[in-house]
Amino acid sequence: MQSFEINRSDFLKIQAALEGSDEELALALKEYHSTEIAILFEKLSVEDRERIINILPTEEASDVISEMDEEHNPGELLVGLDPEKRSEIIEELDYDDATDIISQLDEEDQQELLADIDQEDAINIRALMSYAEDSAGGLMNTDLIKININSTKMQALDEVIRQSEEMEELHTIYAVDDADVLQGIVSVKDIIKARVNTTVGELMITDYVYVKAELDQEEVAKLISQYNLTSIPVVDDDMRLLGRVTVDDIIDVMEQESTEDILKISGVSEDEELSGNWKEAVKSRLPWLIINLATAFLAASVIRLYDAKGPIMAYITIIGGMGGNAATQALAVTVRRISLSDLSDKQAYVTVLKELLVGMTNGAANGLVVSLCAVFFDGNPMLGLVLFLAMTGNLIVAGLTGSGIPLILKRVGIDPAVASSIIITTFTDCIGFLLPLWLASKLLL
Amino acid sequence: MQSFEINRSDFLKIQAALEGSDEELALALKEYHSTEIAILFEKLSVEDRERIINILPTEEASDVISEMDEEHNPGELLVGLDPEKRSEIIEELDYDDATDIISQLDEEDQQELLADIDQEDAINIRALMSYAEDSAGGLMNTDLIKININSTKMQALDEVIRQSEEMEELHTIYAVDDADVLQGIVSVKDIIKARVNTTVGELMITDYVYVKAELDQEEVAKLISQYNLTSIPVVDDDMRLLGRVTVDDIIDVMEQESTEDILKISGVSEDEELSGNWKEAVKSRLPWLIINLATAFLAASVIRLYDAKGPIMAYITIIGGMGGNAATQALAVTVRRISLSDLSDKQAYVTVLKELLVGMTNGAANGLVVSLCAVFFDGNPMLGLVLFLAMTGNLIVAGLTGSGIPLILKRVGIDPAVASSIIITTFTDCIGFLLPLWLASKLLL
Repeated sequence: MQSFEINRSDFLKIQAALEGSDEELALALKEYHSTEIAILFEKLSVEDRERIINILPTEEASDVISEMDEEHNPGELLVGLDPEKRSEIIEELDYDDATDIISQLDEEDQQELLADIDQEDAINIRALMSYAEDSAGGLMNTDLIKININSTKMQALDEVIRQSEEMEELHTIYAVDDADVLQGIVSVKDIIKARVNTTVGELMITDYVYVKAELDQEEVAKLISQYNLTSIPVVDDDMRLLGRVTVDDIIDVMEQESTEDILKISGVSEDEELSGNWKEAVKSRLPWLIINLATAFLAASVIRLYDAKGPIMAYITIIGGMGGNAATQALAVTVRRISLSDLSDKQAYVTVLKELLVGMTNGAANGLVVSLCAVFFDGNPMLGLVLFLAMTGNLIVAGLTGSGIPLILKRVGIDPAVASSIIITTFTDCIGFLLPLWLASKLLL
Repeated sequence: MQSFEINRSDFLKIQAALEGSDEELALALKEYHSTEIAILFEKLSVEDRERIINILPTEEASDVISEMDEEHNPGELLVGLDPEKRSEIIEELDYDDATDIISQLDEEDQQELLADIDQEDAINIRALMSYAEDSAGGLMNTDLIKININSTKMQALDEVIRQSEEMEELHTIYAVDDADVLQGIVSVKDIIKARVNTTVGELMITDYVYVKAELDQEEVAKLISQYNLTSIPVVDDDMRLLGRVTVDDIIDVMEQESTEDILKISGVSEDEELSGNWKEAVKSRLPWLIINLATAFLAASVIRLYDAKGPIMAYITIIGGMGGNAATQALAVTVRRISLSDLSDKQAYVTVLKELLVGMTNGAANGLVVSLCAVFFDGNPMLGLVLFLAMTGNLIVAGLTGSGIPLILKRVGIDPAVASSIIITTFTDCIGFLLPLWLASKLLL
C-alpha cells in the first residue's frame, strides 16, 4: 500500500455521496480509513463534517476526530454535535487525545463538554489538562496496566487480562506498592514463565528509565529514542505513577521539533504553519528580514567606508557570499547535532576546532581558485594574494561563528537554532567585505 | 530522570575499574544501563570493549552491541570475540539488529559468523540481508505473532502465549491462511473477549495498512506516522507475511531523514556524519562550495558588466543578500512540507502562488526602507525608486525559486532538498545585482 493521498476523485465521490441519503453516504464512507476521512475533512464544510460524524459508528467517529489536525478544530466540531453523541465520542477517545482536543476550546465549552460525560473520565481529563502541553505530563496517557508488587503470578495474570480489556494494546506492565509508588516494570512474558508462587515484586526489573511530569517533551523524546523504549513511565515528585508516554506519542513531537529546527535555522518563526496562508507567512518572516536588513546596512557601510572601485568590488561579493554559505553549512551540522544530543564542554570545544580546520581548508581551496582568476583574468598577482587571504579568513570566521554561536546560545539557555543562517551570515558579509578591502588598502597601492 | 550524558566522572570510574579485576569491573558496570555502556564504549579501546562484552551476561552484552552506533563498528567487535560467546550474543540479538550489524562486515567475516550460529537464526538473518537497507524489508523484524485464521479462541490464546515467550513485547497479532498469506489483524483483547467457538477469521479486521518489502523506508515512516500505527505488516508480492516494522524502528529513520533534510538544504552532503572528523567534513562540503563559487562568479560578472560605482554598489549587496535570505525561508518551508506529505498539483500551485504574494509583500516592505534611505541619506529619490523596484522584484524571484524549484525537482524524481539554499541563492544574487544595475542604467542618467 502506498501512502494515502487525497485524490480529486475521492473528494468528488464524497461530495456526490453528501448529496444523497444517509445510507448512501454511510456506504461511501465505508471505503475509507478513519485517517483518510480526517484528511478529507480538511476540504469539507463544518455542516458536512458534522453530518458525517453523526452517521459514523461512535468508535470510528472518535478515531476520525482524534486524527484531525489541530488546525482544523476538532474541538469545535465536537461542540456542534448533539450532546449525547458528543459524550459517547469523548468517552471513546483516549484520555490524552481528549485532553488535547478539549484544551483548545474556551473555558465555557470545556465545562459544558466535561459536565456531560462519565465522571471518572472527566476527572482524568481534568487532571491531564493541568500539565503544560509540551511536558511529559501533557503528552502522557493514563491508560496503563499496573499491578501491586505483592500479587502472585495468577493474580497478576488475571489483572493483566482484566485491565487490558480496556486498552488497545498490551504494553509494559508497571509494578506499584500500596501507595501507588512505582517500584519496577515487568513483562507479560516474565509473568507467564514464572512459577506459581512468585510475586510481581520478585519478577520486576528495578533498573528502568522514568520521567517526571514536568520534563520537557523534547527531553522525553530524546530518552525514548536513546534507550530504544516503547514506553516510559511518568511519575510525580513522590514517584507515584501518573501515566506513560508511548513511542507513537513522540513521533509527532519529533516531527514538530525537526520542523522547528529547519524553519528556525532558515530564519522562519517556529510557529509558522507549513500550510498556512500568505499573510501568516509574511507575519512570521518579515521581522527576520527587517533584522537582517539592518545588519545588511552594516555590511554595506563597509563598502561605503572604503569607497573602493574596480575589479575588487565584484570579488568582495564572491567572498561575502561564500562565507555565508560556509557558515550555513557549519550551522546546520552544529544545530542538528545539539538537537539530537547534548554536547559536553569537551565535545563543544572539539566541534569548534573541527569547524576552524574545515573553514581554513575550504577557505584556502576556494581562495586559490579566486586568486588564480585575479592573476590570469586581471593580471594582478597582488590582488590574488589579497583575495586568497580574505577568502581563507572569511571561511575561518564562517566556521567559528557557524559552530560557536549556536553552542554559546545553548549554554546560556537560548534555543541554538535561533542562531539562524540569517543572523550568522551577517558576520560573514561584514568580514567578507571588510577583509579584502582592508587588505587591499594595505597591500595594493 | 534526565537524559543520559556521558560524564567525565563516569568515564573515569570505568577507566579505574578496567585497571582492576574482572569482579571489580563487573561490579562497576552494574551501575550502567546497556545504552549507557554503548555510549561509554565510544571512548574505549577495542581491547577494553571486548573485555567488557566478555564480562557482561550474554543478554546485556547483546543489548550493548545492538545499541552501539553504526560508526563505532559493533560488527568488528563481534568478530574479535571468542566464537562461542559471539554465537550466543548473535542468537540473542533481534534478527533485524543482527542483520544490520553483520551487513557491515566483509563477505568472509559474514560467512564465518553465520556458520557458527543456530541454523534457523542464520537462515532468517540471510533472508533479511537480501533486502535493501533502506527498504521496508531492510527495516522489518521477523519476530511476530501469527495465527492461522481457522484457529479457535483457545487455540489462538495458546499460540499467543507460546509465540510471545520468545518476544520482548506483545504487539498486533497477524492472521494468515494455510499458505502464510496475510488475511487480517486481530488484538489480544478481541481474542480474550470472544466466545469459545469463534475462529480468528471471524475476529480479525480486514481493513488494515500493509507495505511491500521493497517500499522505501521514508514512505513506511510516513504511513506509520499518518495512520498512528504501532506496527505495520510487511508482505511479498503474493501477500505472504514476511515481517513487521514497529514504530520504534522508524524513530531512527525519522531522525535520519530530518537530519538529511537539514544538511541538504544547507549545502552539506547527506552522508556527512554529524560527529565525523574535519577531513570528512571538508570532503562533504567543499564540492558544494566549489559549485557555488562558479555561480558566484556568474553573479559577480553582472557587476563587471555594468562597471557601476558610487552608492549603488553598496545597495546591490543589500538587495542580493536579502533575496538570498527570503529564498532560504521559502525553501525551508517548502522542503519540509514536501518531506512530511506529498503535495498534489493543486497544492503545489497554491504554494508557489503563496510564496509569490509573500515575496511581493516582504519585498515592498524592505524596498520601502531601502528607498527611504536612498532619499534621506543619498538625497536621490530616483535611486530610491530603482532600489524599491529591485528589492521587490528580487524577493518575488526569491519566493518563486525557493518554492518552485524544490517542487519541480520532486516532480522529476530528484530529492527536493538538493535545491539547497546554496543553489537557490545564486538566482537571487544574480537577479539582485542585475535588477538594480539594469534599472539604474535606464532610470538614472
